[in-house]
Amino acid sequence: MVQTHTYQEIKRQPETWRQTIGMALSRADEVKQTFAALQPEEVIFTGCGTSYYVSIAAAAAFQEKTGLPAWSVPASEVFLNPGSVFSKKRKTILVGCSRSGNTTEVVRAIEFARQNKLAHCFAITTRPSSQLADKADTVFHLSHVQENSVVMTGSFTNMLLAAQLLAGILPGDEAYLGELKRLPEIGEDVIARVESLAKDIGKDRNFSHYIYLGMGAQFGLANEGMLKLKEMTQLFSETFNPLEFRHGPISVLDEKCRVILLSSQSIRPYERDVVDDVRKFGANALVIGDRLEDFQCDIKIELNSGLTDLARGVLYLPFLQLLAYYRTLDLGLNPDRPRNLDKVVLLKN
Amino acid sequence: MVQTHTYQEIKRQPETWRQTIGMALSRADEVKQTFAALQPEEVIFTGCGTSYYVSIAAAAAFQEKTGLPAWSVPASEVFLNPGSVFSKKRKTILVGCSRSGNTTEVVRAIEFARQNKLAHCFAITTRPSSQLADKADTVFHLSHVQENSVVMTGSFTNMLLAAQLLAGILPGDEAYLGELKRLPEIGEDVIARVESLAKDIGKDRNFSHYIYLGMGAQFGLANEGMLKLKEMTQLFSETFNPLEFRHGPISVLDEKCRVILLSSQSIRPYERDVVDDVRKFGANALVIGDRLEDFQCDIKIELNSGLTDLARGVLYLPFLQLLAYYRTLDLGLNPDRPRNLDKVVLLKN
Repeated sequence: MVQTHTYQEIKRQPETWRQTIGMALSRADEVKQTFAALQPEEVIFTGCGTSYYVSIAAAAAFQEKTGLPAWSVPASEVFLNPGSVFSKKRKTILVGCSRSGNTTEVVRAIEFARQNKLAHCFAITTRPSSQLADKADTVFHLSHVQENSVVMTGSFTNMLLAAQLLAGILPGDEAYLGELKRLPEIGEDVIARVESLAKDIGKDRNFSHYIYLGMGAQFGLANEGMLKLKEMTQLFSETFNPLEFRHGPISVLDEKCRVILLSSQSIRPYERDVVDDVRKFGANALVIGDRLEDFQCDIKIELNSGLTDLARGVLYLPFLQLLAYYRTLDLGLNPDRPRNLDKVVLLKN
Repeated sequence: MVQTHTYQEIKRQPETWRQTIGMALSRADEVKQTFAALQPEEVIFTGCGTSYYVSIAAAAAFQEKTGLPAWSVPASEVFLNPGSVFSKKRKTILVGCSRSGNTTEVVRAIEFARQNKLAHCFAITTRPSSQLADKADTVFHLSHVQENSVVMTGSFTNMLLAAQLLAGILPGDEAYLGELKRLPEIGEDVIARVESLAKDIGKDRNFSHYIYLGMGAQFGLANEGMLKLKEMTQLFSETFNPLEFRHGPISVLDEKCRVILLSSQSIRPYERDVVDDVRKFGANALVIGDRLEDFQCDIKIELNSGLTDLARGVLYLPFLQLLAYYRTLDLGLNPDRPRNLDKVVLLKN
């Protein structure tokens, strides 16, 4: 097998998570003081593409753990539709995520918020020498995560983990931080267990339409699974909240569809019904979750982490990334060089 | 031509808008008093499927016009992930949208919010005798909008218009209300002008993949355009924010793709660049907007309303609905009875 950048970057994730945990915990006192001094009333996460999907998952964890209202918007909305993003009555922290730190929309979002005194700006990026890092008030540097591939893999999980660590550090939630600290070790076990499954499933040519389902924080992860497959293979792939899927989109199901549900332990009874419908309409149901016991579906991927829904998020990704990777190889495409894409999107205007 | 329910319900929209305007304005003093007494600090719009897409568009207009923070979530998130939806520190109004008023998730969302004293509940529904209408504290009844088709058409535009009227009534924004009052007359003209185009484009068999792009409030409308096509034809259809589209999904473009951009006058320079990329990769670009002048694209649909981006939203829908309708007829399917769908989604649990 050719050792592509994508493959290496997927496989080394648990080791990079260890370093992200070390980085964030070493900054704990400082970020607590920053938030205490600012007394923010809301936190808005933003990014583009993969980094926007980080934002969706991060915001759900952040609000749950800190009690501060948190949500996510694409970076373009921040400076093009600021009236529907910011409320001048509130003290806001804007958290911008970007692998390169040079994506025009994220840089412009931070600039816009600072120039108009709309928010304190916090950045999470893998490039300490970048416009985003330069312009933000506070930065989480992930300089140990340098990716050569066009598609983002380890940068997604590390930026998400950094945001989750922030969500645990601020309220001093030691139980949550304890769960996050276990991720590197559990992640190594998960990757060792899921790779051959991902390879087999990636070689399966029976499905031309992939549907990713996830709720709450898992909706961000499901979107990222969808985007990996779409970017690398151009296969038709979509994401829905599992209950929303029934309100119209379920009409597309047939035997060419593989539905990949990212299970949340807390909503299991609803998930069972959605999966029953998926199978009733002739589609294939693959469920990835922590423990799936007697769940009736076609393929089960068990993470067996024992972690809560909001802590184990990054553990879903290696399987989803490897599935896209092996599907790409089977199609004879180069995972490192997907069609129509550049590594950083720069706007002309 | 068979006079399907779907067709009749699309065509009669401007007349129903007239009645929705009358209903909302007759309730102006009452809803202003309700909001003044409650002093809400945020407004959360919710719904399922088409009604969730109403919520996305409604929240953008609501925050812009009232200055109150407003956003949207799928109804299932309200009761299954309340910790990432509600902040106990804030006084919240939850606006639930549902054509039937009996969709389990919306009813459960309202029940959950009331039982836990999380929000004052406002409902927008076409069925005054429904669980949603019974359980909500305040209701906008759209009893003049009764639909027989499974797919929602006029109920989308009328629920959105009702929410927009609320957004104009509360701050007493007479300019915005004046724009909304012109919609029925302009809508009649738009439908008369766009139907033959929608019919021609609906018969065009060159495209198997439809991509809808829209930003801000237009993102909700783009989603609804996508869902109509998906529900009725099961063709591949997706929605993106136009700038987000470049961050990965653009890799899918080829000559089988038709991209439908719902233009916002305020972001035209960015839209031009996205459309240039769409054409560079061999796809077909259809743009629908108010005035498109020298916009370089394959097909232009001009609304010519003279209304602002946040007022003319419902005018995009007749073309998008008719396009899906005529595509459905061309495929030999019954628009009134889409595959795998029921009119109301009821949960077992």
